[in-house]
Amino acid sequence: MAIHYPNGKKFNKGNVVNNAPKKRSEPTTLYSNRGMTLEDDLNMANQYYLADGRAIIHKKPTPVQIVHVDYPKRSAAVIKEAYFKQASTTDYNGVYRGRYIDFEAKETKNKTSFPLKNFHDHQVNHMEQIIEHGGIAFVILRFSFAEEIYLLEAKHLITFYRKKETDRKSIRKKDIEIYGHLIKIGYHPRIDYLEVVDSIYFMDES
Amino acid sequence: MAIHYPNGKKFNKGNVVNNAPKKRSEPTTLYSNRGMTLEDDLNMANQYYLADGRAIIHKKPTPVQIVHVDYPKRSAAVIKEAYFKQASTTDYNGVYRGRYIDFEAKETKNKTSFPLKNFHDHQVNHMEQIIEHGGIAFVILRFSFAEEIYLLEAKHLITFYRKKETDRKSIRKKDIEIYGHLIKIGYHPRIDYLEVVDSIYFMDES
Repeated sequence: MAIHYPNGKKFNKGNVVNNAPKKRSEPTTLYSNRGMTLEDDLNMANQYYLADGRAIIHKKPTPVQIVHVDYPKRSAAVIKEAYFKQASTTDYNGVYRGRYIDFEAKETKNKTSFPLKNFHDHQVNHMEQIIEHGGIAFVILRFSFAEEIYLLEAKHLITFYRKKETDRKSIRKKDIEIYGHLIKIGYHPRIDYLEVVDSIYFMDES
Repeated sequence: MAIHYPNGKKFNKGNVVNNAPKKRSEPTTLYSNRGMTLEDDLNMANQYYLADGRAIIHKKPTPVQIVHVDYPKRSAAVIKEAYFKQASTTDYNGVYRGRYIDFEAKETKNKTSFPLKNFHDHQVNHMEQIIEHGGIAFVILRFSFAEEIYLLEAKHLITFYRKKETDRKSIRKKDIEIYGHLIKIGYHPRIDYLEVVDSIYFMDES
């Protein structure tokens, strides 16, 4: 199934899968290149966690439907025709403190609500299944204007999402403030979301 | 990093990520199209487990480095230039009985040994980290001539792999028979690898 890259958004290099550590631009140009930097920051957090022996969490490659590949002599195979596919799962998963962990990260320019069109039925069903199987599932939501990043447990996202058809097409920011958990912006890593995961899922143990 | 698709093998459609259930060819033509069917069988097993509420295990998309994308008007974005990348993790992961599960699947035409070049340092290090973090990690190895499929726990693969440079470049089949676990070929699913996982990792609980 060929689709426009999420919600018809144009492709940008920030969405290209690249496991190599990226150089940060000047520290003052925060999110100057919108749409890619939440992902960059999460990838950096995950690299930090990995190097630190804290968690093994990776972003999955972007799903692509490959149609045509060329094999030039003496050089690498070149994909000449391919299409972006809709992901059937979430983007990030791995293992943390012996538990399976699974999440999706999205951002919005909206100031007062988070549009639910950022999520697909497949992903929401996937998160529901993860919970049933004893995994940890959540979403990381960024409000780019306020520069606020929240962790919202999947159980709440699912409730809001299932209301979508009869009710609102977005989650009000004030509901995210109530049900979600603000992730403090720091250093090394900038987005230390596991600190919030600890406070929600490992309270008794830490 | 542009690379030839695994070990310089030509790309074939079996490696294309496709989450849609595939029609099986005639049941008598087992593995007639080599190089894709172990993956097909594992994908079908995973769909079966998912539908059955037994486990949530997915194959990760093939990692691709996207270089150029066209945006024709009124139609889907077309990737015009991209390259296969080496995976930094294993291909399959998910959650089973509350545990994180992670594996790689490979096959060989060799009759008496399994070449270790099928695995990369990154993948072996990844499996080692998974074990340290309390996850379940293994490989599924298929000997295509004998039509025998083994589950080998990552701890054994790691031992064989680390010996590689000073010792053999492959694992002898007889060692896989000793350290590994034969997966019986059945129906629904054809490769019921979780039955073997139960016998290794959940013995006390089942």
